[in-house]
Amino acid sequence: MENISINELKNHFDEEVVVSGFVDNIRNLQWVQFVILRDNTAKVQVTIEKSEDANKEMVELIETLPLESTVKITGKLVDSPKVKLNGMEIIPTNIEVTSKSSEELPFNFKDLEGVNLDTRLDYRFIDLRNDKNLFMFQVQSTLVRFMREYLYNNNFTEIHTPKFIGAASESGADVFEVKYFDRVAYLAQSPQFYKQMAMASGFNKIFEVAPCFRAENSNTSRHATEFTSFDVEFSYINSYEDVMNLEAEMLAYALEKTNELYGEKIKEVFGVELVVPKLPFPSMKLADIYKELEERYGYKVDEAEKTDLTTEAERLCYKLSQEKFGHEYLFVTDFPAEKRAFYHMRDAEGHLMGYDLIWRGTEITTGAQREHRYEEIVKNAKEKGLDEDVKFYLEFFKYGCPPHGGFAIGVDRLTMLLLGIPSVKETQFLFRGPNRLNP
Amino acid sequence: MENISINELKNHFDEEVVVSGFVDNIRNLQWVQFVILRDNTAKVQVTIEKSEDANKEMVELIETLPLESTVKITGKLVDSPKVKLNGMEIIPTNIEVTSKSSEELPFNFKDLEGVNLDTRLDYRFIDLRNDKNLFMFQVQSTLVRFMREYLYNNNFTEIHTPKFIGAASESGADVFEVKYFDRVAYLAQSPQFYKQMAMASGFNKIFEVAPCFRAENSNTSRHATEFTSFDVEFSYINSYEDVMNLEAEMLAYALEKTNELYGEKIKEVFGVELVVPKLPFPSMKLADIYKELEERYGYKVDEAEKTDLTTEAERLCYKLSQEKFGHEYLFVTDFPAEKRAFYHMRDAEGHLMGYDLIWRGTEITTGAQREHRYEEIVKNAKEKGLDEDVKFYLEFFKYGCPPHGGFAIGVDRLTMLLLGIPSVKETQFLFRGPNRLNP
Repeated sequence: MENISINELKNHFDEEVVVSGFVDNIRNLQWVQFVILRDNTAKVQVTIEKSEDANKEMVELIETLPLESTVKITGKLVDSPKVKLNGMEIIPTNIEVTSKSSEELPFNFKDLEGVNLDTRLDYRFIDLRNDKNLFMFQVQSTLVRFMREYLYNNNFTEIHTPKFIGAASESGADVFEVKYFDRVAYLAQSPQFYKQMAMASGFNKIFEVAPCFRAENSNTSRHATEFTSFDVEFSYINSYEDVMNLEAEMLAYALEKTNELYGEKIKEVFGVELVVPKLPFPSMKLADIYKELEERYGYKVDEAEKTDLTTEAERLCYKLSQEKFGHEYLFVTDFPAEKRAFYHMRDAEGHLMGYDLIWRGTEITTGAQREHRYEEIVKNAKEKGLDEDVKFYLEFFKYGCPPHGGFAIGVDRLTMLLLGIPSVKETQFLFRGPNRLNP
Repeated sequence: MENISINELKNHFDEEVVVSGFVDNIRNLQWVQFVILRDNTAKVQVTIEKSEDANKEMVELIETLPLESTVKITGKLVDSPKVKLNGMEIIPTNIEVTSKSSEELPFNFKDLEGVNLDTRLDYRFIDLRNDKNLFMFQVQSTLVRFMREYLYNNNFTEIHTPKFIGAASESGADVFEVKYFDRVAYLAQSPQFYKQMAMASGFNKIFEVAPCFRAENSNTSRHATEFTSFDVEFSYINSYEDVMNLEAEMLAYALEKTNELYGEKIKEVFGVELVVPKLPFPSMKLADIYKELEERYGYKVDEAEKTDLTTEAERLCYKLSQEKFGHEYLFVTDFPAEKRAFYHMRDAEGHLMGYDLIWRGTEITTGAQREHRYEEIVKNAKEKGLDEDVKFYLEFFKYGCPPHGGFAIGVDRLTMLLLGIPSVKETQFLFRGPNRLNP
């Protein structure tokens, strides 16, 4: 017989069912045993009457069964309004132990408050059994699913670019070195160069969801040495505003779909409201933001710092955007060109054709129209002192390349902000940082 | 005005349109210029009458414009049955050159026959402009899209496991080393251990599409140092046959959907029939295959070689499966356990609970029920002489773990077989091998 998910049991009253899961709890009373069975969808009570002769073997089995063992239970599903857990119980005819949890758990994963984060990460395979954590990854998977769906609907092609690269290209610093047979290879910090290669090849519209690697020896709530990046690039744009619009539409689409499936449960489990954003997203120039942050909240910074958003300014942008526009998102434009990557386009006056997107006080995206003209991109690279390492990349633009732009979103960071989780250490399946490579 | 894809033009006769693309060809005649414009969907003719005064600037521009430059053309779309190319032409009012191809192309990408593969890969950004290559990646993207869709429809969660690992775990050999701050990390050869960790954590059903890294110094049509793996793992199975069935259903679903969209075009472009496979896929035991290959085709091998399928036996399996079952796919079971990974389950008699899937003469999958019982997996690891390196992995099974199984499919290899392309060097966006890290 087929295994039934616990959340599907409601369609099977008075039938014989097979359910499998972890033994979440056992109450062994004088006349009866209550076993709570848990799978990734829900929990259900299994009730074993001790007085029944036919139950003798099951009763003995349950007496000594450690919690968190896995079992396969065959039995009849009964409507029992008196049972607090969903008003149903299973009267089993057979219990098969499929694995035994033989030891004390390293910590109580059902109540993570007060458990040291490093201990949790050391035993991440136990930590993830927590209901909230399991649900978090369902939400993440769903969000990415619908971001992809939006792009498929708009004729984007998914590509898979190499993570091994021959030169430490984008910046030289912060690149991991790999022993590659008798030479050295590097790990891609982002698919940027290859997304653009796809444009030069005429792919027109592409995306990629893949790991990026950054050798940053820093330890913040937002950084990891490896993270999942959702990268988009497309051609024949008129300006970086086309990029902003597409990103806003994609996010709005994915959040709306995720809200339909999980909005209520997210509120219940994480206490966070999933607000489906209205289009278009508001946008402000960097200088105007600093002006308004000072006027509204008395936030002052040195002129020298105004070439980028400070962490505090990012935080205040959330307040500003909500008060001024009634919106959670804020596009920030008009960054000084000299602080930005050489492949971002500048207009005739030298203004940067790019943006950041701030959500709930944190930058989630850098996007831009890219420089696609060979002479200009060569000039930009020279100005930044880049030379041999980007030579292969500059070639892409020699034989015609459409105007194009794109952006990238960190999936772990997006999940963190969506669910109000304090750190990407908790939203990555297995966090990787300078001091963490295990399990 | 919005840019229109060339394949969408048929809905815009007698309208003013904006189209963008590469200049595929120019015929400069005495009284008229014909410009063929190409995007990733189709080609269209742009016709410029030299006698029209208003066209003077455009005519001069086209006189000196190198092929493969990109342009944005505004004009009227006209129904012209005499035009061979789709019976339409654009009468332009404006041509904007968005990028100039300033040099001779390194080779003629429209006719790749006879072009050295290494030259093609050196200039992959040009090579990919070939119609076939662009279409190949649309097919690949579509196939993966519908493999995912099948899994979403069956309540699978997509996860992203780390590629950095702390120990050279699966086999020791063939693992890339990374300089990781003041220590060494390794690159995951597959997500195997972490897929199983998800099972121990109660994820129930997961998949991942991500790069895998293999330090194999070999140069075949099927191998690369980096490739995209489509990995699936799920819990509460009764046997490895559940894994085979799910894989067969997933492939049949994705191929059917891909066939609906692209079946005809695949035949036209690649000369290959996309056969949507019938369920269930046929299955044979390894020993029976060797017996039948000898009886039918006189193929003999030494007993010592019969512990696995030889390359020639794989090839002959295609013939056998077609003749015996009228099917392109063949599951092969009953491999000797000692030749297989320690995490594959053996039954009480020591028989392997796993399989290979052969398609069109090539192995595309190894799948299995996994060993989920702590004592057994520890024993298996010891027998293989594995110790410290898998210690972290063995921990996953200490605290209860559901019975589970899974499989992996190489996306590049799948694309190669689907379209009848000779090598994964051509189906990877950018091939990576022992001697290739560029571009």
